Formats: sequence, C-alpha cells, structure tokens
Amino acid sequence: MSVLVVGSVALDSIETPFGKVERVVGGSATYFTSAASLYAKVNLVGVVGEDFPRDSIAFLQERGADLRGLQMVPGRTFHWQGRYDFDLNTAHTLDTQLNVFATFHPELPQEYRKPRIVFLANIDPDLQMEVLDQVEGAQLSVLDTMNFWITSKKDSLLKVISRVNVVAMNEAEARQLVGSYSLLRAAREILSLGPDVLIVKKGEYGAVMFTESGYFVAPAYPLETVKDPTGAGDSFAGGFIGYLAEQGVGEHLNMRRAMIHGSVVASFAVEDFSIERLRRLTRADIQARYREFQNITYFEALGSD
Amino acid sequence: MSVLVVGSVALDSIETPFGKVERVVGGSATYFTSAASLYAKVNLVGVVGEDFPRDSIAFLQERGADLRGLQMVPGRTFHWQGRYDFDLNTAHTLDTQLNVFATFHPELPQEYRKPRIVFLANIDPDLQMEVLDQVEGAQLSVLDTMNFWITSKKDSLLKVISRVNVVAMNEAEARQLVGSYSLLRAAREILSLGPDVLIVKKGEYGAVMFTESGYFVAPAYPLETVKDPTGAGDSFAGGFIGYLAEQGVGEHLNMRRAMIHGSVVASFAVEDFSIERLRRLTRADIQARYREFQNITYFEALGSD
Repeated sequence: MSVLVVGSVALDSIETPFGKVERVVGGSATYFTSAASLYAKVNLVGVVGEDFPRDSIAFLQERGADLRGLQMVPGRTFHWQGRYDFDLNTAHTLDTQLNVFATFHPELPQEYRKPRIVFLANIDPDLQMEVLDQVEGAQLSVLDTMNFWITSKKDSLLKVISRVNVVAMNEAEARQLVGSYSLLRAAREILSLGPDVLIVKKGEYGAVMFTESGYFVAPAYPLETVKDPTGAGDSFAGGFIGYLAEQGVGEHLNMRRAMIHGSVVASFAVEDFSIERLRRLTRADIQARYREFQNITYFEALGSD
Repeated sequence: MSVLVVGSVALDSIETPFGKVERVVGGSATYFTSAASLYAKVNLVGVVGEDFPRDSIAFLQERGADLRGLQMVPGRTFHWQGRYDFDLNTAHTLDTQLNVFATFHPELPQEYRKPRIVFLANIDPDLQMEVLDQVEGAQLSVLDTMNFWITSKKDSLLKVISRVNVVAMNEAEARQLVGSYSLLRAAREILSLGPDVLIVKKGEYGAVMFTESGYFVAPAYPLETVKDPTGAGDSFAGGFIGYLAEQGVGEHLNMRRAMIHGSVVASFAVEDFSIERLRRLTRADIQARYREFQNITYFEALGSD
C-alpha cells in the first residue's frame, strides 16, 4: 500500500498578485506528501539543509510519512524564488539556488524498495532513472517533468518516460516534447513512447487523461480564491496517487475518480501560500468538494438508446 | 416555438495556420441560424448587399429559416478580414468594411414580433435595444457581445443587459465588463445587473454557466481538427437556444443540456471554414457527439450517502 516519492524539498520565496512570502516550505515532494498522506503511507526520498524548519518535518511525520529517506546534510536547503502575474498559469523564476540539492543522489532505504506506487516528481530525469533502478515490483510508476528537462535532457527524459506507466505534464510541455500542435496527436505520440496513460494538466482549465482507448476530461473548478498556484501539480499528483493507493490501481474508473481527487486536492492547495491549506485539509473537505465536482458537471439525458 | 435572431450576415476573409479563404459566408446571424435551424424555426433579421451569394440564402431557406427580415439593399455586404495564429482563441482583425451594415436598423416583420426566444447576436447594443423594443412576450432573451462594445458603448450595453435573461461573453470580456479579476466575483456582479444566467465561453477550454444558485461546467472537447474558430460562439448559441426552443425553457437541467448541445455544435463548426461543417451537420451527428461528451466526463462514485 506504500507510495514512494522522490522530489525536491525546498524553501520558496513567492510573489503573486495576492501576497508575498519568503522562505516558506515548498518543493514537489513536500506538496505531494502533504496531499498523498491523507490517503496512504508515503515514503519520501529527498534532501534538506540545516535551515529546513523542524515543524514542517514534524508535520509530515504526524501525517504518517516515513522520512528515513530524507537526507539532512550540512548546508542550505534548495531555494526557489518566483513570481506569478495575473496569468496564474505561468510561473516566472527569479532565482534558483540548488544548494544541497546540487549533489543530491537518491538513496532508497531498504524498506522503500518494493513500493506499490512510485512518484517521480519533477527532477533531473537521470535522478528519476536512478530511482527506478532501485525499486522493483511497483504496480504503477508516475512521472512528472517540466519544459527545462525537455530542453536540456531530452534523451534521458525519453528513456525514463519509456519505463513508467503514467506521465504528467502541462499542455505546452506535451506539445513541446513531440513537436505537435494538436494535443490529441501529441498525446498519441507520447503514449507510443511507452506509457499507458498521459495526464495533461491545464491549470485553472482542469486536466485531461489520455489512454489508448480514449480520454477523460476533468472539469475546471471555478475558484473563489487563488493565492498561490505553486505546488498545484504536485498536489494533484498527491490526490491522484493517494486515491489509487487506497482504492486500487487496476480499474479504469478508479483512474477517472483519481483524476477528480487530484483536481480537488489541487483546488485546495492553491487557496493559500505554501502547504498551509494542505496542512488543514481533511478527507471530509475532499469529499464535500468531490460532490461539488459531481454537481457542477452533471447533465446526462439523451437516454441510453 | 420560433426563435428570432438579429445579427450580422457577412462575407469573411480568414487566414488560420490551417488555410486561407476569401469572401466566404459568415456573420453571427448566419452561423447562429445554420446551427439553430437544426432544432427549431428561425426568423432572421439582418442586412446583405447585392454581392451576397444566392446559394447561401437558398441553404438557410432549405433549413426552414424565415428570411423576410433579411433586408437586401444596394451595395456591398459587411466584410470582415481576420487572422488567427496558433492561439486559436484570439482573432486578429485585419480589416472591417461595414458597407450596407453601416446604416442598418432592425425592422421586424409583424410575424416576428412575438418570438418564443430572442437572440441578440453581437452587434451595437443600441440596435439590440431597438430589437427588444419591437418584441413582446418572449420567454427567453439571450445577448451576446464583445470587448469592442464594452469599451465604446458601455452605458448602452449595461442598459440592454439589464433587460435580457441570459448574457453570453468570453472570459476576458466578463472580467473587463465589471473590472474584476476573479471570474466568480465577475459573474456575481454581472448577474446583479439583471440577467438570470451568465454563460462564459472559454474557447477550447469549454464554457461555464453561472446562475444565482451555482454554476455548471461544460467540458472542453479535445478536437482532432480545428480549421477555423470563426463563428464558434454563435454556433454555440445556435445549439444552446435551438435545444431550448425544442425542449422548453423552464427547467434548469434543460439549460445544462442546452450548454452541451451548444458545445457540441460549436465543436463541429470549427472543423471547417465558414459554415461548411454546419451545412453538412445532422441531428445524428449531434447525438453521437453528445454521447461522447457524456462518456469523456463520466466519473461518479463516492456514493449518494
């Protein structure tokens, strides 16, 4: 039942039209774990420096996460500084300090090596490959990536994509990876590289899941408050994978419902800075919003003739 | 059961990344009528010059449209020249020749004055008001508009908005009209101006319907082929209003299903230039794609507890 995540654990300084925060807790593995741990046991692999706040470590442990794979080393934690304008779909990176992340290599504790589900968060595809080489027997492996790796390490990225079941990326990245304007054509080409499933994230416009047999459109959820879109994709992955870890990987309908859980969790994550909203999030909150997703998309009719 | 539409009947010269056409049939009333006439009797009010092709007149008449309100006057038909780049959501106007449209005032034949549903397509809000002044007893009035009128004739626009039941506009226009970044807040403000329903069109990302009691999200339909987005909004209105004319205006669920019919018809309209795809469109085509919309959005579960 365990979920393994490898990704960044970071400090972020972020400015959006709705506020500004400095050196708050962030990173793909942090967002993912905060979300997925509401559903399943999460084993985290990553690295932090001496400046990473103890109470955030304590929070993840209280959620039941296993942090034996989180290396704590001398030096400073990975720091990302970014800005969002009114187009909240686009992050503008102002500064990146790799710090202790610069020399990071994932080392999986023995107990992590037979996970049920692996999530390779958005990091160097060579590191993602090192993780795959250390695990065996996973029912599902999910990879997230970004334009930076498509540009700078495409060969490595294609290799690791060919070894996972599910690939998640945003719309522009899917088009960029295979050089196709049509999203449907891009999806077919990406699936032909090996994965069974492609998830295309469209930010505030929802997400689409492509498989061999067709696609599923998860709705856009109109949000009252968006303070900070950082971590939305990893929170989505947390809800998606967490639900599958809990309910079982096999069935196609479970994948669809997992898409809704991902969308629900992401819609909460962006309501506040850092992992603040995820800290307070409960399964009851998730269920209530899941029902709202059902309600705002229902139409049926035209009969079953 | 009749539907009244007032809008432009035009010739368009259009360039998209997928082709180029010159002086083809276009205009908001033309697209609307081509779509809505698959569901209901349409009475059209507009104006054309001597250069408007006879076979397009014949086509609309074959579809059962009443064209007694279509003035044919000496001179040239309204001509719009536009270009779309790869971002097909944005039309770039290269040239507009009002021609016979410059002096147009809608004159409703006696038989048009008690319509069941009125569609005020995207024209000068003062002309939209002239139409409302000539009709009585309509069950539903629907207004479309654009950023040009928000900027140049806001007072007139607000007046006519206060007199209709349904307002349709795109996302940026809804925000612009009331100066609110949050779409939810913008929707509430627009509804407070008078209408019962606001439809926000998001192009390839679907559409959302806002009412006092909540909202409904119509999915984005991933299209294999998009040749020309011109007329998508009016085709949407044609499917939406046509379905309501056929099935009845009263019920909220009918409004939701009408949103799907609108989305379905619009998804066909953009597959070819001008009204070419709408000419060939059948109710069987529409039903098949409606089922596809059901299929690509189905997830349910979480029980009815």
